[in-house]
Amino acid sequence: MAVHDAMYVLGGKWKISIIASLLFGKKRYSDILKDVDGISGKMLSRELKEMEINQLIKRTVITTQPVSVMYELTPYGETVQPVITILAQWGIAHRDLVTKGTASVEL
Amino acid sequence: MAVHDAMYVLGGKWKISIIASLLFGKKRYSDILKDVDGISGKMLSRELKEMEINQLIKRTVITTQPVSVMYELTPYGETVQPVITILAQWGIAHRDLVTKGTASVEL
Repeated sequence: MAVHDAMYVLGGKWKISIIASLLFGKKRYSDILKDVDGISGKMLSRELKEMEINQLIKRTVITTQPVSVMYELTPYGETVQPVITILAQWGIAHRDLVTKGTASVEL
Repeated sequence: MAVHDAMYVLGGKWKISIIASLLFGKKRYSDILKDVDGISGKMLSRELKEMEINQLIKRTVITTQPVSVMYELTPYGETVQPVITILAQWGIAHRDLVTKGTASVEL
């Protein structure tokens, strides 16, 4: 199933949220860390490395003092935008069920 | 971000693929296991339990000899269909990059 291929690249708990953060433009590591609720520094580093290898994002070192590192989506990474949009719509539509916990809601 | 809420419910490696399998209709545990490449029996049991708690799926025990258990999407689970469709389209569009491994492809 094609959805398996997509999940092979985008699956896991954090990649979709990291891409959603970078859709707003180039960001520093610390900005992404603030954007993605609940992710640890160690996990973010690991996910960013994996996403770089998968060519979803590009990493640029800026030789300021001190040095800073910027992350941005590649053209390939930007193709994920429709997935993010539909997930956000689904998240908004089902916010009640998600945030109030499922047990309280009669379907 | 609304996408975090969506990923809170749909995130992880397997839920999207399990929902994709159940979009084709009611299925036995063994059918789902065959559909979802790479998932272990133990992991499938755990994910199905979580999805039942989250009201994405419904579990029906059929009192045949031997007893059999069927899984199906709830109306809430079916609302995920547009997400699956977009992910499948993305998976097809990027199959080359995904299956041939990223290194070999010039962006």
